[in-house]
Amino acid sequence: MKRAVVLVSGGLDSATTLAISVRDGFEAYALSFDYGQRHRIEVEAAKRVAASLGARAHRFAAIDLRIFGGSALTDEIAVPKTDAVRDAEEIPVTYVPARNTIFLSYALAWCEVLGAGDIFIGANAVDYSGYPDCRPAFISAFEQLAAVATKAGVEGTRFRIHTPLISMSKADIIRKGAELGVDFSLTHSCYDPTADGLACGACDSCRIRLEGFRSAGLNDPIPYANR
Amino acid sequence: MKRAVVLVSGGLDSATTLAISVRDGFEAYALSFDYGQRHRIEVEAAKRVAASLGARAHRFAAIDLRIFGGSALTDEIAVPKTDAVRDAEEIPVTYVPARNTIFLSYALAWCEVLGAGDIFIGANAVDYSGYPDCRPAFISAFEQLAAVATKAGVEGTRFRIHTPLISMSKADIIRKGAELGVDFSLTHSCYDPTADGLACGACDSCRIRLEGFRSAGLNDPIPYANR
Repeated sequence: MKRAVVLVSGGLDSATTLAISVRDGFEAYALSFDYGQRHRIEVEAAKRVAASLGARAHRFAAIDLRIFGGSALTDEIAVPKTDAVRDAEEIPVTYVPARNTIFLSYALAWCEVLGAGDIFIGANAVDYSGYPDCRPAFISAFEQLAAVATKAGVEGTRFRIHTPLISMSKADIIRKGAELGVDFSLTHSCYDPTADGLACGACDSCRIRLEGFRSAGLNDPIPYANR
Repeated sequence: MKRAVVLVSGGLDSATTLAISVRDGFEAYALSFDYGQRHRIEVEAAKRVAASLGARAHRFAAIDLRIFGGSALTDEIAVPKTDAVRDAEEIPVTYVPARNTIFLSYALAWCEVLGAGDIFIGANAVDYSGYPDCRPAFISAFEQLAAVATKAGVEGTRFRIHTPLISMSKADIIRKGAELGVDFSLTHSCYDPTADGLACGACDSCRIRLEGFRSAGLNDPIPYANR
């Protein structure tokens, strides 16, 4: 059985990505990051998601990007809550410098140890069009890097970064996940949950999620604080 | 003054690289990693080296590659001590999967926060010919990745990875460092120091270092356990 390293955040995109990797016949090795997030609840969601979808193993890499500062998800600056339509050209303040580059670098290291050549990441160029490291050009550049960066690459492994969600809408992702048996009640998306761990229902991430379920004609099974 | 992120391990290559970045007029931001090394002494050497050469700031990123296993420097397998000439085609067992990819990813993140476009790394394709991620092809692929991976790159920053040592012999590096005032007594190279922190004088790294000083006609100022 071919092995793949699958990045799992605990959100619904990575849950669907993990389900797709399993459907495609891979033995999935789930990799999550604890990168100075404000909410440990994300870590717990990642554990539940990986276990529920049958990941063969699950590793957590603790990486502290707060030593550099510079992002809404790692600093104590306010998470945006707005009705304004975001300028598609603008890079959101929730952008974390080089985050997916760092994530894929770790995935590549684990691949080499496992003898795997496949990495799955739930990057999406539709809802996250502002993130440079969610675009096909980035994914392609990383594949080219992997080929020359590693012992395995030099010895002939062809690394492939799978991005099954890259051109899907949030509604498509939710429909696909539901079709593959993802239990969305285990997932967590909110940037700004309550002390009890309830999703706020108002941040960008909650709004995109709720609108996705609405478009998909499905019910979001998680409880929200403000609804 | 232009800023640069400079990777500093505490060894003589990175000390010379840092001195070169300062000579070239950069304000140097030193970045070191604590990646589950067996020897905290490397961390202390990095601090001394960065301070002595006038780094503007110094950050340590704690990254634990032991969660994946797979290398002599992170696992408890024996460090090679041998007189045998290494096959130039062979990748040493001290190779750490994707290590420089991970290191440069962190450097890239800090660059974005600092508004810097320059990274210095003491990669060397002569003495470390077996490491895929010490070759010009790797460095070039990482520059191409940086251009598409980041907000800064998308907005026009041209990232450059400086590898001033890439084709220098160890003797050349030592001569260059000495010329630029590097205090080699502050540096640490040994893979297998004694409990007191003395270099063993027998591991690959010590042997390359000692031979380098010999070829350069200079005296290695650090004490050794076995000589």
